[in-house]
Amino acid sequence: MRDVAIIGVGMIPWGELWEKPLRTIWAEAAVAALEDAGVDTVDLITVGCMSPGLFVGQEHLASMVADQIGMAGVPAARVESACASGGLALRNGFAEVASGLADLVLVTGVEKMTDVDGADATFALGTAADQEYEGFHGITFPGLYAMMARVHMARHGTTVRQMAAVAAKNHANGLLNPNAQYHLKVTVDDVLASTMVADPLHLLDCSPITDGAAALVLAPVDRARDLAGGRPVVKITGSGMATDSIALADREDLGRLRAVQLAAERAYAMAGRKPSDIHVAEVHDCFSIAEIMVTEELGFFPPGEGGPAAENGLTALGGRIPVNPSGGLKSKGHPVGATGVAQVAEIVTQLRGEAGQRQVQGASIGLAQNMGGSGGSSIVHILEVAS
Amino acid sequence: MRDVAIIGVGMIPWGELWEKPLRTIWAEAAVAALEDAGVDTVDLITVGCMSPGLFVGQEHLASMVADQIGMAGVPAARVESACASGGLALRNGFAEVASGLADLVLVTGVEKMTDVDGADATFALGTAADQEYEGFHGITFPGLYAMMARVHMARHGTTVRQMAAVAAKNHANGLLNPNAQYHLKVTVDDVLASTMVADPLHLLDCSPITDGAAALVLAPVDRARDLAGGRPVVKITGSGMATDSIALADREDLGRLRAVQLAAERAYAMAGRKPSDIHVAEVHDCFSIAEIMVTEELGFFPPGEGGPAAENGLTALGGRIPVNPSGGLKSKGHPVGATGVAQVAEIVTQLRGEAGQRQVQGASIGLAQNMGGSGGSSIVHILEVAS
Repeated sequence: MRDVAIIGVGMIPWGELWEKPLRTIWAEAAVAALEDAGVDTVDLITVGCMSPGLFVGQEHLASMVADQIGMAGVPAARVESACASGGLALRNGFAEVASGLADLVLVTGVEKMTDVDGADATFALGTAADQEYEGFHGITFPGLYAMMARVHMARHGTTVRQMAAVAAKNHANGLLNPNAQYHLKVTVDDVLASTMVADPLHLLDCSPITDGAAALVLAPVDRARDLAGGRPVVKITGSGMATDSIALADREDLGRLRAVQLAAERAYAMAGRKPSDIHVAEVHDCFSIAEIMVTEELGFFPPGEGGPAAENGLTALGGRIPVNPSGGLKSKGHPVGATGVAQVAEIVTQLRGEAGQRQVQGASIGLAQNMGGSGGSSIVHILEVAS
Repeated sequence: MRDVAIIGVGMIPWGELWEKPLRTIWAEAAVAALEDAGVDTVDLITVGCMSPGLFVGQEHLASMVADQIGMAGVPAARVESACASGGLALRNGFAEVASGLADLVLVTGVEKMTDVDGADATFALGTAADQEYEGFHGITFPGLYAMMARVHMARHGTTVRQMAAVAAKNHANGLLNPNAQYHLKVTVDDVLASTMVADPLHLLDCSPITDGAAALVLAPVDRARDLAGGRPVVKITGSGMATDSIALADREDLGRLRAVQLAAERAYAMAGRKPSDIHVAEVHDCFSIAEIMVTEELGFFPPGEGGPAAENGLTALGGRIPVNPSGGLKSKGHPVGATGVAQVAEIVTQLRGEAGQRQVQGASIGLAQNMGGSGGSSIVHILEVAS
């Protein structure tokens, strides 16, 4: 198995991009990554996208996007694992380079979510849950996460203020990220004063609907060293995937995210790392309770300590383990198929020391955790500056 | 890169499976493949499915299907390249085993298409074309292939009787396949007497709407030899992918399928084989003209000779190069995400000498060609009996 590096990242400003179709926002991120990498050909394009069929009436992105940047002919593959589609696109590209089937791979994620009316976007997102056993009976994602939050609160004493602290922290980070959808200061009291969506989750506990894309370029490490031009070479040292039952009712424990724990265990084992080795992490804060649960499953904090850790600033910039310096899904936005790729783009930017005002000082080992639906799938990657 | 073998195949009868949800037909094929392989655990599940969101209102199959066979926890990945999704699922699994990231991979394809009303199925299939430049203006797939057929007819003198001969041959083969959707004899005159769908394509030139699933189990060749129990070990020796512009208007030549030619070229190069080495092939006959064009792009016949070859029996069982012994998409059915996996299942069955009445005698090298949309993507695999 060959060692694989990330030699280019491409991010664009996210938001409600009414004036641009999916293919355009995809191309902007893809071209930015190719320019950053300094290459103009690739052997494969992977595209993480959750539901272009329901959001914009278009499948077969593999074919569409290659042509959009003048690469018709180049192999392309769309992958989907709901909101973990971006992480899966990276995994797919990683396997191709590691095997030797491809040298240069353009890994991308995209979602165009704001062109549908509200009800349709909610339906489309709901297809990440078990439709026959959950969605068709009326529950939506805030409801599913609210049930998990209630279990966590009952078991560990997690509070709504601790959850709100996650949202406040991520909005503070997003103020430092020029590509974030929202640049606004949010306090714990703002969160608690916002509309209740699904008790105990307020509006400001929830990530938004977003249009966006992100991209990476992968290469074998030897080639990456040639192309680096003095910048640090960032290697993928761990890649772990896992599933869990899609329906909450089938889970052993509603207060756990078993797919996250399993994916992390596999990624740590491949990298030969442990949680305390990680300097910076991007995690899947689709709801504030998710970040609390995920930081526990990743082993950053013991069960029940994720909430107090957030409240006490341990996950803030300058804290013990900065989490979501990009602003996370909460502030940077959550174009579902793009999120997992953007998380890795942020970690690469941090490990290169190019994160500007939100730089985590001295970071050389980072982790990105992407999650599908209510935790039915998760993908974890560990990245390190190559020595 | 490790050598990869296919150690199990799972097929179920295809058709209008009203009484079974997607997860059930998927599980039946998956379990059949695991039983055939003689294994009860895998390291990864891949799922080719074109549009579960539009067909059945469910995305995130990666999570749903693993749980359905008691494998929640196992990594799973859905991939999509329209009607080439099944071929992509195999490619994805192949890369994982070749790289060493996984040993045993369950490769699957599924589509449940008959639970939507007619207009919706047509819309869902249409999302494989360029919606903004083709679909939203009213054209559907028969229309796109009819335009390609007209170019082929004008350039090469291809006739409607030659196209009809493809359908008649594939229905004759389907009569010998117990899993085929249609068991009915169709003559050239039957095709020409059937309803005109998009001139020059009649109803019986078109593949049907189908519910179905298919599955394979992959393993490194060394492990495959241990598990074979006296049956031939079938290796994947070539895997080639390519794209083309999704919209016909952007193509250089409407009378060619460039993605097929490129994917085949890459697969032949990897396998060190040429067209005349192939003993049996399953190809993507979504419309009868497609089989004619594809057999030319694969190099089985020179340009313009695909039609006469079909009419003269060169692609029939017992002919020079039997094409679609399974009955093809035309007779076996075309559950879009499952098709690419079922093609490979048929080739493995043929190379094992287990195809019964439709056995191609002495076949030891086979090819499977899967295609997305109107040729916007294609994936070709070459399989060989390991010595």
